[in-house]
Amino acid sequence: MSIAEIRTIQWRDGRVIMIDQRRLPHEEIYLTCSTYQEVAQAIQSMVIRGAPAIGVAAAMGVALGINASSAKNKDDLEKDFLGISERLMATRPTAVNLSWALIRMKRIFKEYFNHPLPALKEAIQKEALTIYEEDIALNRKMAAHGEAFIRDGFRLMTYCNTGTLAAAGYGTALGVIRAAHEAGKRISVYVCETRPFLQGLRLTSWELYKLKIPQTVISDNMAATLMAQKKVDAIFVGADRVAANGDVANKIGTYMLAVLAQHHRVPFYVVAPTSTIDPNCPNGEEIPIEERDPKEVTYLREYPIGLTNVPVFNPAFDVTPAAMVTALITERGVIYKLFKRPHESEINSGYDKDK
Amino acid sequence: MSIAEIRTIQWRDGRVIMIDQRRLPHEEIYLTCSTYQEVAQAIQSMVIRGAPAIGVAAAMGVALGINASSAKNKDDLEKDFLGISERLMATRPTAVNLSWALIRMKRIFKEYFNHPLPALKEAIQKEALTIYEEDIALNRKMAAHGEAFIRDGFRLMTYCNTGTLAAAGYGTALGVIRAAHEAGKRISVYVCETRPFLQGLRLTSWELYKLKIPQTVISDNMAATLMAQKKVDAIFVGADRVAANGDVANKIGTYMLAVLAQHHRVPFYVVAPTSTIDPNCPNGEEIPIEERDPKEVTYLREYPIGLTNVPVFNPAFDVTPAAMVTALITERGVIYKLFKRPHESEINSGYDKDK
Repeated sequence: MSIAEIRTIQWRDGRVIMIDQRRLPHEEIYLTCSTYQEVAQAIQSMVIRGAPAIGVAAAMGVALGINASSAKNKDDLEKDFLGISERLMATRPTAVNLSWALIRMKRIFKEYFNHPLPALKEAIQKEALTIYEEDIALNRKMAAHGEAFIRDGFRLMTYCNTGTLAAAGYGTALGVIRAAHEAGKRISVYVCETRPFLQGLRLTSWELYKLKIPQTVISDNMAATLMAQKKVDAIFVGADRVAANGDVANKIGTYMLAVLAQHHRVPFYVVAPTSTIDPNCPNGEEIPIEERDPKEVTYLREYPIGLTNVPVFNPAFDVTPAAMVTALITERGVIYKLFKRPHESEINSGYDKDK
Repeated sequence: MSIAEIRTIQWRDGRVIMIDQRRLPHEEIYLTCSTYQEVAQAIQSMVIRGAPAIGVAAAMGVALGINASSAKNKDDLEKDFLGISERLMATRPTAVNLSWALIRMKRIFKEYFNHPLPALKEAIQKEALTIYEEDIALNRKMAAHGEAFIRDGFRLMTYCNTGTLAAAGYGTALGVIRAAHEAGKRISVYVCETRPFLQGLRLTSWELYKLKIPQTVISDNMAATLMAQKKVDAIFVGADRVAANGDVANKIGTYMLAVLAQHHRVPFYVVAPTSTIDPNCPNGEEIPIEERDPKEVTYLREYPIGLTNVPVFNPAFDVTPAAMVTALITERGVIYKLFKRPHESEINSGYDKDK
């Protein structure tokens, strides 16, 4: 199947269908969720992941739950709404898109609260689909803004998966890279495998292969060597939450890349929709960081790869200080003047080579 | 089996026996090499790895080959010697201990060239055993020198495997850590898993577990976060080759740690015997870096973990500039005044906390 035919998540016949990302790249299998509990479980077990995709899934989860509610009056329906929201909110703590989507659903719920019950249910479902459609449109806009930072011949580096699979479609950081390719720029991409869950090796590599964009896979600890060898012109990553001061929470290892990028004077771009910015979170220290099962590190699928009885530290995300981000690329434009920019002259020469 | 009973490599009844490090930590299986070709294959396929251990294996390989030689005169034996050396030398290019051991064997070969054939063969075998025994003694000396840099309560970080399994016994960087533990200091160790071959997760974790030294396993991309959280007091790594200017080639990912250590003001120590210093190699750029099979990244044992038809960059080592090394700890003492030391004041406060 071509990447245009891949559907990360879709609403069909009152059910939610997702490609099972745990089984990629080896199998392209779709999983159907008929209840909001199944959607919550799918988010938690990473059938679906990526901040924008999680937001869409949560919204569709609410629609599923409200559709199936047997409440006969508004007060009971409100209780159901709160229970559904709470369950979905509890799936993963770091990506703010989850609460952002749930807040949007709540707004609609309140707006239509005095309408007849079928109209309220319909409005909820419509809002979930709107969030889905808006996400694809946002991705295209981010891609257009970000693509300007990529020059013909650039050797890019990316982390985790921020493509079609991380959003309703197209993607954030990988969307930018894809847009540069589609604009005819001859680019190549270093794909960091992204331990422990291997989203780079399994998902990004698969998307780039399908898009016929030249790639080289590396393990995360090789990124420094490539930068030292001056083989990386720019780095593009996504975000799970951007604090009000510009600090960025993203997949564990992103901060490592940011430090290396600063040391080697490589421009470091974060691509995320404005829904990822959390104005209620003053700085990176306040972002809750999910710690996941040690087995993600010590097992590969069902196979143990190390001792299984030793302590493991497995944070799913890390925080990159705003000052290390060259620019934040959103659907509404590029934000970089707000942040202190390290090594401004070198960064300029990075993307403005022929100035 | 306790770690004291584990034999990385030994010479017994005219054969070489090694623990098969590819199968650790799940199985403690010993492999017997009866020919120098089998020793060469064992080095190449990483049954045995670690710069000092490779040196010992090569010396024992020469002894095996010379013992088995059917040469009836010295000229034929010399031809055999050169063929054996060449085969062993071709196994892995980066660790200089390999050529160092082969040069030592050649010196003995020349020294005893005019002796009767049995005496020559005996001298060769004796030299291999001397290299083995010296290595253990050297490790103990390095451990004693390095241990002084570790204070009670230190939270250490280490990379790859530099313990009993990487040498004839005891180890280099992990030997230092072990000595601190044996001296009664309450230490804990962050073990970087060390992709792609997982020497940290599979071997170092296993050694620390057997030694009852508290540990926490992480994937390599989490090291930066721990340093940012000020949870790392010092980093100890080994070396495969130290150039004349002090640049250090070591397992891929070491340079990443060095950059992160400098950024976060964490002391960064390299522990290696003087046999790892290559006076003929002016600087890090001249150190040959082995690139290994892409399958090490895209497969885990026989299981593919990503697409298997995409390009992979898989260098086994990287180079850390001398200026980033706080001190080089050898059996003959600690070298640090030769190198430029970044952030000298901070490094001092790192290991001289109560000054």
